[in-house]
Formats: sequence, structure tokens, C-alpha cells
Amino acid sequence: MSLKEKVAEFMTREFPQTNVVVEEVGNRSAKVRQPIGEEHLRPGGTVSGPVLMAVADVAMYAAILGEIGLVALAVTTNFTINFLRKPSATCDILGECRLMKVGKRLVVGEVLLYSEGDLEPVAHAVGTYSIPPVR
Amino acid sequence: MSLKEKVAEFMTREFPQTNVVVEEVGNRSAKVRQPIGEEHLRPGGTVSGPVLMAVADVAMYAAILGEIGLVALAVTTNFTINFLRKPSATCDILGECRLMKVGKRLVVGEVLLYSEGDLEPVAHAVGTYSIPPVR
Amino acid sequence: MSLKEKVAEFMTREFPQTNVVVEEVGNRSAKVRQPIGEEHLRPGGTVSGPVLMAVADVAMYAAILGEIGLVALAVTTNFTINFLRKPSATCDILGECRLMKVGKRLVVGEVLLYSEGDLEPVAHAVGTYSIPPVR
Amino acid sequence: MSLKEKVAEFMTREFPQTNVVVEEVGNRSAKVRQPIGEEHLRPGGTVSGPVLMAVADVAMYAAILGEIGLVALAVTTNFTINFLRKPSATCDILGECRLMKVGKRLVVGEVLLYSEGDLEPVAHAVGTYSIPPVR
Repeated sequence: MSLKEKVAEFMTREFPQTNVVVEEVGNRSAKVRQPIGEEHLRPGGTVSGPVLMAVADVAMYAAILGEIGLVALAVTTNFTINFLRKPSATCDILGECRLMKVGKRLVVGEVLLYSEGDLEPVAHAVGTYSIPPVR
Repeated sequence: MSLKEKVAEFMTREFPQTNVVVEEVGNRSAKVRQPIGEEHLRPGGTVSGPVLMAVADVAMYAAILGEIGLVALAVTTNFTINFLRKPSATCDILGECRLMKVGKRLVVGEVLLYSEGDLEPVAHAVGTYSIPPVR
Repeated sequence: MSLKEKVAEFMTREFPQTNVVVEEVGNRSAKVRQPIGEEHLRPGGTVSGPVLMAVADVAMYAAILGEIGLVALAVTTNFTINFLRKPSATCDILGECRLMKVGKRLVVGEVLLYSEGDLEPVAHAVGTYSIPPVR
Repeated sequence: MSLKEKVAEFMTREFPQTNVVVEEVGNRSAKVRQPIGEEHLRPGGTVSGPVLMAVADVAMYAAILGEIGLVALAVTTNFTINFLRKPSATCDILGECRLMKVGKRLVVGEVLLYSEGDLEPVAHAVGTYSIPPVR
């Protein structure tokens, strides 16, 4: 199995509620896709904020798993998101994560979120994850 | 109907996906409750980060509706959350929002999230919402 | 010497550039005061953003020193500030910090900043500090 | 005068306390340089957090002036910074800003901060600025 397949399988097993698709993992980065349905929309015909937050969190988690392996349990400590544009109600949301720091105790990454087919991001997130000490 | 009932009814109608219960609204504040089930948990037996984010967002939204009325459509522009402790997998999550600024264009609020029965918060969130101009 | 005096002396010695006055320390909290002069102002007759950020950072640092002692060197890992109102150009800035989590590895605190004499805060900050392992 | 020279002159006049040098402005971006001296350091031989925050704020402000012109007075509403690595005590700090959204009411930008000569950033900041309505 490729690293991407391993991470995707791990995410499916450990986070069965999410239907985010892991599309790429490696080199301190990850790409994910969230298929959008009625249950992700909010009034005004757009994707709800918490859905975007969840996609960003999964993208960072996938990138971190690609770096530190599938065993460790990273914990989000801080998460900041800026909403930039109204996402399309009919396109998938794509998340592209790039890790800016992979330390022994803390990992920091950023994610750009897009409505598929649009070049301008709909949101930008930054997250910090704490890596538990090896026992 | 009380203000709390009006806001709760509005939220149920406009955000049918969420099952967050609006418990108090008024005086630039709101309290909400998220019943926790299997679908909100993540590995390690705790409530997932995106669930906490969604509860905080709803709490702020309810407090804002209580101030500016049910017509206007506030839009989240910035949202920051710090995770402080591991939430219980078996207790409801309570969210207490306090608005720090209610301006004509921007509203800023903070939310403390608790596992019911625990005095120490599990997370703290701050959000900024843009209020569309009256037409 | 009281805890407050010890922390104030430490801050003066270690951060000689700042003229923030430490007024209270203890019980996971701290209060500080920034005398405002011409050098802290920006166009429009208000206190500049970076000055408010520095006051918030010092307030959190003082509160942390009060909890973990004067030896350890805490490092800011994340800092978020929301600007709520225009500060007065002629009043001192007061910073009130409350630590929300004092863990072994991470400390999280929030600070409310005021123009002295005004009840509504001019800004709200949240910061995360990493505590180096004891060697 | 070039756009860069106009912005640099404006910054020098309006923010006389800062000695940040504006090096590039245009295309929704800006580059600035902070010469580092004794007054910018903190214990442990590194650049203090508030100095990095101030450089990021100036970089975003310069990029915004390049887009909306020198008259308008943008106001920071939200600012988040993640500290990634210990900056060098002997190198200039470089700030590279890229605006992610330039709206009528809100501008959102991110800044990467470097110790000159190092490829890995020492910090990453995101800021939101409110643009006052034209009267």
C-alpha cells in the first residue's frame, strides 16, 4: 500500500463519521476532498462553516500522519480559520495542507480550502497539533 | 414566544442538521447544549474537535441572533479555538457565549465549552462575524 | 519579596526594553499596566496594535511566571488578538490575564485589555505557551 | 515615485516609531525588512515575539496600502501568529505578505517571517483588516 492508501485506510477506520476522501499524502503535505450534499449546506445556499473547519482538520491530520506515522495520536491544540469567500453549494470542497513545522512536540500546518474549479480559496486555516511523548 | 424560543425555532428551521439545543439567549450571551452520541466521538474516547467547533459556532450565532434579530444573516469571518482538556465521551457539551463587541459591521464573541458536570472548560473559542449592511 | 515583586523584578531584568508595570500576580492571573506616550500612538490618535499585542504578551508571561516559577523559559507558540474598540490616546492600557490551562507542556491564557477608566475592553487576546521539559 | 516608494514614505510619516523598511509592494503582496538590534532581543538570544508581531502587521499594512491607496485608514480587527522556530539574534527579520482576500469591507492577508538567510520561516501570521466605508 502507498502512504496515501495507508493514511486513507487509517482515517476511515478511526474516523468513520467523516466521508472526506484523502487524495494525496507526503512531503509534509496532504490533499483531501469533501463531497458536498444537502447535509453540508446552510441558509443562503453555501457550505456551512463547521463543515469547512472539519475538512481543514482532516487535511492537517492526514499530513501529520504522513510524517509521524499511523501510531501516534496527535491532538489539536489550536485552530484558526478565516473565511474568505462564499463556497459553492454544488461543488466539492478541496483542502490542501502544507505543514510549516514538524517538531518533536508540536506540528503547525496551514490549509487552503477551495470550491472545486475555483482558483480563489474559500477559507484559510492554521492549526497546531501536540504530539504525545513516545513511551 | 420568548426570545430564547424564537432563536431556537429559527435555528432548528435554518440549520436542520444540527441537534444543538439553545437553552438561553439574551444580554449579549447564549447557552447551548450538544447531546453527545457515538457519532461525535473520535479515537481515544473523546469528543472530536470539529464537533466542539460546531457547538461554539452555534452558541455565537444564537447570541448574535438575540442581539440583531432573526432576519439578518451574520457570516463568520474568523474563528479561533484552543483545546484545553479532553472532553468526556459520556457527558453533554455545554457552550456559553458572551459577546465582547456588538458593532454595526462586526460582532466579536467568545465561547467556553464544558463537559457537563466539570468546572474546567474543555475548549475556548473566539469568533468574528460580519453583519451585512441593511438594504 | 512578594510573588508580584519577584515577577516584576524578573521581568525588568529580562525584558529591559518594556516599561510595562506588573501590578498583580497569582492564582493563575496577572494584571499589568502600560503607560502610554507619544511613541505608542498611531495615526488617528490611538494606541497602535503592536503595543496592545506586547502588553497582552507581557500579561500572560507574568501570569505564567507566577505559576511555574522564575526559572523556566516559556515560549509563545500561538497568539491571537481581536481588536474591539479604539483605545484612548491619553489613558494607560491595563491588561488582565487569566490562565485557562496550566499543563506540564502547554499553558493557555486569555487577556482583556482596557483603556484605564473604560469598562468595555479595547482588545481580547488568547495565547499558548510551550513549557520546556525539565532537564 | 514608484508604488513602493509612495507606501514607504507614507509609512515613515505615519508610523515614525517603526524602523521597518518597505522593500516591495504590489500585486496584493509586500516585502519588508526589520533590522535587528539589542532592543529587539529577549533572553535566550532571540528576537522577541512582539517584534515579530509588529513586523507582520507592518507587512500586511504595506500590502493593503498598495491595493486600496494611501488615503484609507485600514484597522486591524484580528491577528493570529504562530511561532515556528527561534529567530537568529544577529540577522534581519524579513516579512513576506500575500493578501488572500481584498474585499470592500475586509482584507485578509498572511505573512511569513524569516531570519535572513534561512529558508524555513520563524513565524506565520494571518490578519484581518477592516476598511472604513468611503464617505
